[in-house]
Amino acid sequence: MRLSRYFLPVLKEVPKDAEIVSHRLMLRAGMIRQQASGLYAWLPLGYKVLRKIQNIIEEEQDRAGAIEMLMPTIQSADLWRESGRYDAYGKEMLRMKDRHDRDMLFGPTNEEVITDIFRASVRSYKQLPLNLYHVQWKFRDEIRPRFGTMRSREFLMKDAYSFDMNKEEARRSYYKMFVSYLRTYHRMGLTAIPMKAETGPIGGDLSHEFIVLADTGESGVFCHADMLEKTIPAFDVDYDGDLSPIVDDWTSLYAATEDMIDMEEFEREVPEDRRVAARGIEVGQVFYFGTKYSESMNATVTGPDGKEVAVHCGSYGIGLTRIVPALIEAFHDENGIIWPVSVAPFEAVILNLKSGQEACDSACDSLYEQLRNAGIDALYDDTGEGAGAKFSTADLIGIPYQLIIGPRGVKSGEAEIKHRASGERETIALDQVVTRLKELIEPERRDKI
Amino acid sequence: MRLSRYFLPVLKEVPKDAEIVSHRLMLRAGMIRQQASGLYAWLPLGYKVLRKIQNIIEEEQDRAGAIEMLMPTIQSADLWRESGRYDAYGKEMLRMKDRHDRDMLFGPTNEEVITDIFRASVRSYKQLPLNLYHVQWKFRDEIRPRFGTMRSREFLMKDAYSFDMNKEEARRSYYKMFVSYLRTYHRMGLTAIPMKAETGPIGGDLSHEFIVLADTGESGVFCHADMLEKTIPAFDVDYDGDLSPIVDDWTSLYAATEDMIDMEEFEREVPEDRRVAARGIEVGQVFYFGTKYSESMNATVTGPDGKEVAVHCGSYGIGLTRIVPALIEAFHDENGIIWPVSVAPFEAVILNLKSGQEACDSACDSLYEQLRNAGIDALYDDTGEGAGAKFSTADLIGIPYQLIIGPRGVKSGEAEIKHRASGERETIALDQVVTRLKELIEPERRDKI
Repeated sequence: MRLSRYFLPVLKEVPKDAEIVSHRLMLRAGMIRQQASGLYAWLPLGYKVLRKIQNIIEEEQDRAGAIEMLMPTIQSADLWRESGRYDAYGKEMLRMKDRHDRDMLFGPTNEEVITDIFRASVRSYKQLPLNLYHVQWKFRDEIRPRFGTMRSREFLMKDAYSFDMNKEEARRSYYKMFVSYLRTYHRMGLTAIPMKAETGPIGGDLSHEFIVLADTGESGVFCHADMLEKTIPAFDVDYDGDLSPIVDDWTSLYAATEDMIDMEEFEREVPEDRRVAARGIEVGQVFYFGTKYSESMNATVTGPDGKEVAVHCGSYGIGLTRIVPALIEAFHDENGIIWPVSVAPFEAVILNLKSGQEACDSACDSLYEQLRNAGIDALYDDTGEGAGAKFSTADLIGIPYQLIIGPRGVKSGEAEIKHRASGERETIALDQVVTRLKELIEPERRDKI
Repeated sequence: MRLSRYFLPVLKEVPKDAEIVSHRLMLRAGMIRQQASGLYAWLPLGYKVLRKIQNIIEEEQDRAGAIEMLMPTIQSADLWRESGRYDAYGKEMLRMKDRHDRDMLFGPTNEEVITDIFRASVRSYKQLPLNLYHVQWKFRDEIRPRFGTMRSREFLMKDAYSFDMNKEEARRSYYKMFVSYLRTYHRMGLTAIPMKAETGPIGGDLSHEFIVLADTGESGVFCHADMLEKTIPAFDVDYDGDLSPIVDDWTSLYAATEDMIDMEEFEREVPEDRRVAARGIEVGQVFYFGTKYSESMNATVTGPDGKEVAVHCGSYGIGLTRIVPALIEAFHDENGIIWPVSVAPFEAVILNLKSGQEACDSACDSLYEQLRNAGIDALYDDTGEGAGAKFSTADLIGIPYQLIIGPRGVKSGEAEIKHRASGERETIALDQVVTRLKELIEPERRDKI
């Protein structure tokens, strides 16, 4: 993408009302724009990141056997009356009446709708296990939206719903999602720790939150330091096999949020020098809630013995619009964002230090073409800005590799590659840039880790 | 995808309240499920088609220089008061109050929001031309939603918005979208005819609707028969070049909807034997509306002479959730849907006529693996259903190629390939199926036409 034809409204000033660094950087880098309290437009740079995150989530959900679909944002109040949550949900639910005066709402979650779809279509235990998911916009009318898209009112969430014959089968479905979540965050470059969690208004008796440590996190978290360095299941993990050794291993070390912490247990189980007490950002949650909705909404199947049983369910959420700021909280420095390659809006940026000078333009144009042919997603700063401004913007928006091309380099047939994360620069022959870049980028795409 | 692990709730009965064939087939094929009047869940098979359509639209929008972003579904009423449309829009607008009693609405379109984003970020003519688009859910509270997703209340639309210095430049932006639309529909296998159209409540003085002919269409349309056989601009069309010869050629033949038809002109310009008077489905519309919103919302840039000018704008919509039924109206027979490969939920389906028999299972498993490795998106009917039921389902859901594998064939090392569209069957050695299928499928993917 040529920057001269892109829409990247970076801000020079630091926005005053943005309290945390990710919010400031998302605004400054032209990733988002606030449209109303807790409502954001995703500008092109931000949207590219969101879609890369969505792709990773979808690939990992599919691998784990979940099936993608899409439920509407607007729901009928009737289903929520049936489950008993319509009144219980309170002011966080955005309610409205349609032109025929029917009570509608903007879905804050989808247990009711998916249960309704399930009961209309599934009759027999033979059709189980089933796990359906979608990536759709939700709305929760937070009393005080804040921290940009970290706690916005309209937010994009992946929510999956599993259906099983009994608790033991449901546990297998839960484990698949657990393992899939470990892989999902890891592919984005995040260290997300599963922690015992409150099940909250959804109910149920088995739940983990996945937490990324960050000083600006809203929850206090406590865990064994070894949790931060555990090996992640590989891409060829057998989801049909027994996943309990993996889950047991991950849950054998103490880790809990402040809502669930038992200090005595924490201190008994974790040696003093391995105790981590920190703040964290919740980037996902998995629940087993049993027959809570299947009973109230009458979602049953015929078992092998011919008897009707209420199905056992779980739900599994990942907040996409929250992961973007969580990534920035984890990866930034004083100059801006530092994207991991796997979620970067562009993998490399060409900085033409002398746009308008024929030799520079032609070297950059040719490199841009080569990158495109090599399947590297590159931004090309072909604008008339000065070198200083180009460096600042490239640092701010956090593209992993900067390819710096100036008149002197072009004369001697050389370019510089700057690694955004380390600041390291290497000088390299112009005709070697693509080869070198592929070497750097391919393993960092993390698509087969 | 193994059908035994998929979620494909096909219906045996013909749904009674579905008036048109596409609605009936989408319900029967388990593509959608109604959740409330005019609100549909997209089940896995339907959602796959929707995403394939989205991919094609995005690729063609990007090629034409439009830049993708995403605006929120919920908008503040204030912007609509500024443009003067809040009261004008009437009951089709879904309105609500948030918990702080602020007037909000579910966006039926996005001229106001995008103009607000534009005016906040763009100051100079040097940043033009600019065309921003998104693919986002909209809501229009139709008094009588009908025909399934053809006229639903919540619907998925691609809407692009162009910004230019003056009318002449705006016309170039309009032409880019015009050409891009021709290519977009063509890639889906649709013959969509651009017709002069009313500009409706959005206003403006240059507009075309893109219409697919179908007996169930809601609009009457009139055109020269040659419009149905015109050559589509190729994938390497130069969007930076002069597109007026292409657009002039396309608009030189008479074509207009019933709202715009001038019968005398039609009869004067079109020889009697070339007059088409038919019904059609609108699958997209392009508008130039000048300074309508930029003036009321004060979206100006500084021109080369230092003076502030209101920008000239256009908007360009494609209804994704409407294209799915439009495709079915165009491509079906008495047995079900006949997807073009480029938008098919799966490109091929393996029918194991004797699931459970070891030789059959092993031949099918191996073929499934080979297809996967060859990058062919295949469904594998590995269920315990009988051959007859498998044939019916495959015909109903319309997968372009059926790979039929039964005990006799396996013994002689052969399979049959059935072409869903023609009904033609060819017998082929099992080890040649993938090669033959690639030969058939690759040109039909239409990704480089």
